[in-house]
Amino acid sequence: MKNTSCEKTVHVPGFLFAGVSAGIKESGERDLALIYSERPAVTAGLFTTNRVKAAPVKLALRRIASRRGQAVIINSGNANACTGKQGLRDAEEINTVTAKELGISAGLVYVSSTGVIGVPLPVEKIRNALPGLVESLSASSLNDAASAIMTTDTFAKTCSGKVRIGGKTGTIAGIAKGAGMICPRMATLLCYMVTDIAVRPGALDRALREAVNKSFNRLTVDNDMSTNDTVMIMANGLLGNKPLTARSPCYRRFSNALNEVAYSLAKMIARDGEGATTPVAIIVRGAAGERDAERAAMTIAGSMLVRTAIHGKDPNWGRIMAALGRSGVEISEDRVDIYINKVKVVSRGTGTGRDKSANSIFKDGEVTVTVDLKAGRESARVLTCDLTEGYIRINAHYRT
Amino acid sequence: MKNTSCEKTVHVPGFLFAGVSAGIKESGERDLALIYSERPAVTAGLFTTNRVKAAPVKLALRRIASRRGQAVIINSGNANACTGKQGLRDAEEINTVTAKELGISAGLVYVSSTGVIGVPLPVEKIRNALPGLVESLSASSLNDAASAIMTTDTFAKTCSGKVRIGGKTGTIAGIAKGAGMICPRMATLLCYMVTDIAVRPGALDRALREAVNKSFNRLTVDNDMSTNDTVMIMANGLLGNKPLTARSPCYRRFSNALNEVAYSLAKMIARDGEGATTPVAIIVRGAAGERDAERAAMTIAGSMLVRTAIHGKDPNWGRIMAALGRSGVEISEDRVDIYINKVKVVSRGTGTGRDKSANSIFKDGEVTVTVDLKAGRESARVLTCDLTEGYIRINAHYRT
Repeated sequence: MKNTSCEKTVHVPGFLFAGVSAGIKESGERDLALIYSERPAVTAGLFTTNRVKAAPVKLALRRIASRRGQAVIINSGNANACTGKQGLRDAEEINTVTAKELGISAGLVYVSSTGVIGVPLPVEKIRNALPGLVESLSASSLNDAASAIMTTDTFAKTCSGKVRIGGKTGTIAGIAKGAGMICPRMATLLCYMVTDIAVRPGALDRALREAVNKSFNRLTVDNDMSTNDTVMIMANGLLGNKPLTARSPCYRRFSNALNEVAYSLAKMIARDGEGATTPVAIIVRGAAGERDAERAAMTIAGSMLVRTAIHGKDPNWGRIMAALGRSGVEISEDRVDIYINKVKVVSRGTGTGRDKSANSIFKDGEVTVTVDLKAGRESARVLTCDLTEGYIRINAHYRT
Repeated sequence: MKNTSCEKTVHVPGFLFAGVSAGIKESGERDLALIYSERPAVTAGLFTTNRVKAAPVKLALRRIASRRGQAVIINSGNANACTGKQGLRDAEEINTVTAKELGISAGLVYVSSTGVIGVPLPVEKIRNALPGLVESLSASSLNDAASAIMTTDTFAKTCSGKVRIGGKTGTIAGIAKGAGMICPRMATLLCYMVTDIAVRPGALDRALREAVNKSFNRLTVDNDMSTNDTVMIMANGLLGNKPLTARSPCYRRFSNALNEVAYSLAKMIARDGEGATTPVAIIVRGAAGERDAERAAMTIAGSMLVRTAIHGKDPNWGRIMAALGRSGVEISEDRVDIYINKVKVVSRGTGTGRDKSANSIFKDGEVTVTVDLKAGRESARVLTCDLTEGYIRINAHYRT
């Protein structure tokens, strides 16, 4: 698969989607999503490593041990986090009533929540909306589900890809939400992916970890990590291929396709970072190890000074050098080259003078900062966005 | 010493100060400072741990091994960082000409720079300004020196304290600059302190490390660390006391006084954080260890979401819990209490509902967030400020 698609009407055999308004958001916008597989699916999930975990995450961590699932119900507008024992009871209640409404085992249902922390979940509203939610399940409603999980997102995020497995064409599709509280070292957002390709549990878990490490774990909007972050994938096997293991000839092709879908969704989240006007990619290459490359790139991407400079179209490479220097990575300052887009602004640790013509450096669209450490052959790419007054405005007045 | 003073005309026997305009700043404001001791002083210094170090820092690191000093010359407007071999030659040149002008050994002179990275130091301007700078040295010009080291600072930062040592009264005075690129794990700014108290080199070094750990290393404005950060102290012994060692009866009194001066300067830097409207103190108590307390407090203070919420006068304790949860500190969520100013907003991990009356929580002046982990007896206090649109404006258009 060379290209993913953001078409919103993709079908994945055996999967149905829905997104409705349950009245949790005061705005009346969609706030309740359902993803349903017509048969139990092999399921993998990665959850926040924050020690403060939302109630639904605690529940999902118990469920995921079975590596099976058939439905995920997600509400936005309320995170059901820091809600104590009542929060856990509420998540369990949503789990039970959803399973009942769908006529499946409660052990196959996952619950997710995103939104304000510390406010009791409006269970009654969700329960009342359930029949209509299940009623509206459809194979073509991926985008409804994507829009129902949004909080401060400005657009719904969907992505899909096709991949040839054993002479047949399988599909991977995913939805995600992000915008704020995006940070590394975990599924830093909500993302649900589905596929009709048959995959063994161990192989699915392994592919998901790789995809997340190369996408959502290399994405930073504000260095904050949520209590609710979740990335899940369900594989229902309707394609009928011989279930993939990590040693199958087609495993790498499947894994690459999953990487691309996850990376595309992560890129949409960077583009939609709170207040962002410009998506930014930080590439560190020539590193002695991949971890060094990732660490250096994450530190540069996490620098408020670098991100405000990009917002001001200021090719302020001194801030990039300073961030690199505090990243903890061994560097030889007098070897470092830095490019902003295609313009080499630093050669062997000192300025080239080409940063004077800022206008030609910053064109419309994305900004790519490339740092060459000239210490080895490894590289990493991290996604972020510029830091603007808009970020402050959104976060000074939005209750997470 | 119970209270420090911010009086700007403090005298410290044997020390002279000057601050003039050398034309490095386009604005014509003061940009060249000199601190001079009438006799060689025991000297201690802590410098940035950033791997990218400015030329003058590299030079100072060599000098400080002697633990002696007599003069510090500091320019603002140009950091002399990422300037390659020429930068090092320039710093050495300033060192040499300053020593010559003062008629002292070059080994007793320290050079510091702060300002734009990657631009050659205007050596000629500094050399031309030197005679006038030395000419204007005076015992009462501490504030001139403080204003000459400012970059985006909005006010000059000076502080002094008196301390009784062996029947005599000694003085400690200091100047600092900060505002942006302020972050922990090092002397995160420029700060120069002087005292007439006689202190042995080992004791002075120890006292400085303690003072920095409890002040500048517990201060964060934007999690960024500069290439130029420097904290120094010179003790010229003119008080005539028996030189203090770490075992002297009066050592603790001296050390406490130094802690207070450093903490007061750090507090001024937090108050003057770029774009800040409100200084913020994060106190974590009830921790199992001091490092836990510091780590938790630093993570909360470093959270952009927490700092924007404070700017919006939103008692959004969910963001505080989320930051606490990702700090890496072992916490029991259901034990945590959180206070914003005097109002208890979280009790045992869940909201008290008292955050509804935001107006009564946020009064004018400082904001103090207190987190009680109820896991032990240790505590730490970290300083920061709210995060505002002003920060973005300053940094999108200022070349560091």
